[in-house]
Amino acid sequence: MNPTIDLVADLGEGFGAYTIGSDLDLLDIVSSANIACGFHAGDPDIMDATVAECVRRGVGIGAHPSFPDLRGFGRRDMGLSADEVRTDVLYQLGALSGFAAFHGTKVTHIAPHGRLGNLVAVRPDYAAAVAEAAVRVDKELIVVAQEGELAKAARNAGLDVAVVGIVDRAYQEDGTLVPRSQPGAVLHDPSEIVERTVRMVCEGKIRCANGADLEISADTVLLHGDNPGAVELARLIRSELISAGVRIAPLAEVMDAKRKAA
Amino acid sequence: MNPTIDLVADLGEGFGAYTIGSDLDLLDIVSSANIACGFHAGDPDIMDATVAECVRRGVGIGAHPSFPDLRGFGRRDMGLSADEVRTDVLYQLGALSGFAAFHGTKVTHIAPHGRLGNLVAVRPDYAAAVAEAAVRVDKELIVVAQEGELAKAARNAGLDVAVVGIVDRAYQEDGTLVPRSQPGAVLHDPSEIVERTVRMVCEGKIRCANGADLEISADTVLLHGDNPGAVELARLIRSELISAGVRIAPLAEVMDAKRKAA
Amino acid sequence: MNPTIDLVADLGEGFGAYTIGSDLDLLDIVSSANIACGFHAGDPDIMDATVAECVRRGVGIGAHPSFPDLRGFGRRDMGLSADEVRTDVLYQLGALSGFAAFHGTKVTHIAPHGRLGNLVAVRPDYAAAVAEAAVRVDKELIVVAQEGELAKAARNAGLDVAVVGIVDRAYQEDGTLVPRSQPGAVLHDPSEIVERTVRMVCEGKIRCANGADLEISADTVLLHGDNPGAVELARLIRSELISAGVRIAPLAEVMDAKRKAA
Amino acid sequence: MNPTIDLVADLGEGFGAYTIGSDLDLLDIVSSANIACGFHAGDPDIMDATVAECVRRGVGIGAHPSFPDLRGFGRRDMGLSADEVRTDVLYQLGALSGFAAFHGTKVTHIAPHGRLGNLVAVRPDYAAAVAEAAVRVDKELIVVAQEGELAKAARNAGLDVAVVGIVDRAYQEDGTLVPRSQPGAVLHDPSEIVERTVRMVCEGKIRCANGADLEISADTVLLHGDNPGAVELARLIRSELISAGVRIAPLAEVMDAKRKAA
Repeated sequence: MNPTIDLVADLGEGFGAYTIGSDLDLLDIVSSANIACGFHAGDPDIMDATVAECVRRGVGIGAHPSFPDLRGFGRRDMGLSADEVRTDVLYQLGALSGFAAFHGTKVTHIAPHGRLGNLVAVRPDYAAAVAEAAVRVDKELIVVAQEGELAKAARNAGLDVAVVGIVDRAYQEDGTLVPRSQPGAVLHDPSEIVERTVRMVCEGKIRCANGADLEISADTVLLHGDNPGAVELARLIRSELISAGVRIAPLAEVMDAKRKAA
Repeated sequence: MNPTIDLVADLGEGFGAYTIGSDLDLLDIVSSANIACGFHAGDPDIMDATVAECVRRGVGIGAHPSFPDLRGFGRRDMGLSADEVRTDVLYQLGALSGFAAFHGTKVTHIAPHGRLGNLVAVRPDYAAAVAEAAVRVDKELIVVAQEGELAKAARNAGLDVAVVGIVDRAYQEDGTLVPRSQPGAVLHDPSEIVERTVRMVCEGKIRCANGADLEISADTVLLHGDNPGAVELARLIRSELISAGVRIAPLAEVMDAKRKAA
Repeated sequence: MNPTIDLVADLGEGFGAYTIGSDLDLLDIVSSANIACGFHAGDPDIMDATVAECVRRGVGIGAHPSFPDLRGFGRRDMGLSADEVRTDVLYQLGALSGFAAFHGTKVTHIAPHGRLGNLVAVRPDYAAAVAEAAVRVDKELIVVAQEGELAKAARNAGLDVAVVGIVDRAYQEDGTLVPRSQPGAVLHDPSEIVERTVRMVCEGKIRCANGADLEISADTVLLHGDNPGAVELARLIRSELISAGVRIAPLAEVMDAKRKAA
Repeated sequence: MNPTIDLVADLGEGFGAYTIGSDLDLLDIVSSANIACGFHAGDPDIMDATVAECVRRGVGIGAHPSFPDLRGFGRRDMGLSADEVRTDVLYQLGALSGFAAFHGTKVTHIAPHGRLGNLVAVRPDYAAAVAEAAVRVDKELIVVAQEGELAKAARNAGLDVAVVGIVDRAYQEDGTLVPRSQPGAVLHDPSEIVERTVRMVCEGKIRCANGADLEISADTVLLHGDNPGAVELARLIRSELISAGVRIAPLAEVMDAKRKAA
């Protein structure tokens, strides 16, 4: 059977008169969207418009909650307690759900943004806070994460976890990413990135920084759109996956297919 | 049969280290709460705690959305388009729904706050925006309003409208309030206010500023808690209503009872 | 003697990770800057960096205060009292002065932004509030305005007023702009705009929408940088003015020259 | 000669409709004010009113800058770089200076608030950022601090440092406070606190937690007003100091007197 994969990108990250990224271009490439919820980016008008565009194209809707840090774009550790993380996530997830309901759909996944996203992978208290918020709002929510504390906490809470493949970053043999501070952490060659993506999806393997092969069962691939080259690369990844016989589908379908296959 | 009425107050209107009102006192008096959603007051921690306290006591949960105006406590006209009103209400209603879901309940009513509350009574575009947001999020939401544009728009949208009685304000014969700028607009005598409340609930009548009787079929009575005297008065209203044989119940029950009686 | 003119543009209008306009390009073209002060755009880091770049190039520093409206980019009427306008302007003017002092210079002019800028031209109470704030902070501050209430209030307060020429907009015979809602309000032809600018500066005349000549004694010309074409046009205006023998100088020098000539 | 001391309190810490503390009571007790600058508390209206009240009473004006953390009242570490601390302090110090100028006075001291206040005592990078911002805005600014990194950095920068005595906290022999987490860290007995204050001011000594005497040359005493008892205690401290022959004077006078005595 042909492999199925989701393509996801961060969308709706403008604020007021400000724009970031090429949302309209990306919307025709991805099958799911991580939508900013107003804490690091996004405002009610942008959230509404982004959800509307997703619905129009059948793109799956995910919450992309953040620390409350518009000025820092969610990249700073704000020193929150785990309980503050829980309430901030509830607020943002709920807010996005309002737009989803208005447009006749629902939020299908959650993927923490920026520093919060980094910290839930390593802080069990933050991970548990996010998982608890998610499961009590909707036990069918899919948690998008790399392997780490959030993935563990989500599975413990009974939530589905979608593993995200980061195809423009070098992996270590334990499945974590080579830290950005190290040389070679970020890949730049488009054809190398495309090739890695197709292999990861079709063979379930990705070559590590040390040359060894890592087994990885990714459910979604994270794409970027913050510069013209990124959009071009995203488009190329999509078309090469399709050429390789891969089916692109929203996260909910990918997880369903996986369940049936299991 | 004994009349049934809801008692409602604005709750959760602090922010961070700031507090306003006597929430814990009021929570033992009211049967429903208008909960601030972070735009004029309230933050995720306060919303979470307020919803939790409501659930503990069986107090009904309502969204109290506002213009985005923390500094002005939602009392200023921010010059928003009707579409911005729609998206701001969706955001706030959704956010509160997140906390409700977490605590195993749901938002049962919506009551716009402050200047937004004033304007939805007279601006058809704002009224339609709020009604459309509400009905598409949950067609069972009850809209709390005085007679006016919002009540009309909500009924047109198929939503239940709960009429709120403002017992410390003088009414005009057309059912609107005497403007605050006029003498006698606000009543101060506790025993007069209590007596008006009991008569309004039991007889469906309230004496107007000009001495005539106005027929009013209130579903809820708005109480205040911003000073010790207000809490005392709220407590007195509750006990005198009970003494008069009135049943106090959350808004959803009041509306159900009304439907069955009809 | 050769005419002297200032060229000014709005700068520092990003926020956090967001950018708007081509600040570095414009900084090499203008002689003065209207710097956003954090209410509609700008944050402390951006203000600091913008002031530093101005100082490096000898570009004059002006405050560009706004209504507190980051989400609306200062384009909405926030319903403020005149006293709130006064305190908001004091706050922003003071804040920018902190950065000016740090970098060894001072704020030499003030030019209200967006909707506030529109309203101070027609609301005497807002105009008086801005003029009073400005004169009590520094009686040598130059107020940049078109003719209108702010210009009047500033002169009454003893402040110097620099008249700004808006060379890409059509004028009416009374010296006000043709409203944007009317056809022909905004000019688009670069060579026409350049020609109008040179004539305005060298001859003190600008052709009105109805074909008549309007006498105008502009001290500064407002340039834009929000798209590549705008920067190109700004560069062309500068070079054509210089070719015509015009001296480009910061606002403080322009006003000094004017005083000496008078 | 009679000793001279300043009495200082945090003032203007409301926001919009919210109030904290008893500003009007405290204003009649203190000789200097640490005024919130809008980042943890305070808004332009409150800053304006607070400065006006200080000027009316001859109370000295100090900036009380904070991390940008309204929701956390400046009590959280926001993970800022030292350069962000510098620009945030410049912004706030400048903003307050605008109000001071408007009311015909100037900012005479700076005292970082909350978590920023804690961190500048121990982080040399933050301390240097604050000292650099202060000295370049006004080299006559007095820095209010306990002994620590900020006091050191300020002296290195050529600024006057006023040592603040915290009379309701237990001291350790090295001059630092007993951490709040330890028993006995906070003193509660009013008569003990008053006695310690008078002794500290008149004899330059304060009894440590371990019973030993610590030499301390305080220039100002920090008073509180967040509850009725605190205001009563502040009033008592003032009257007992006066009874003991101490002169109460704004910080600038205290530092002048000290310079002349030296």
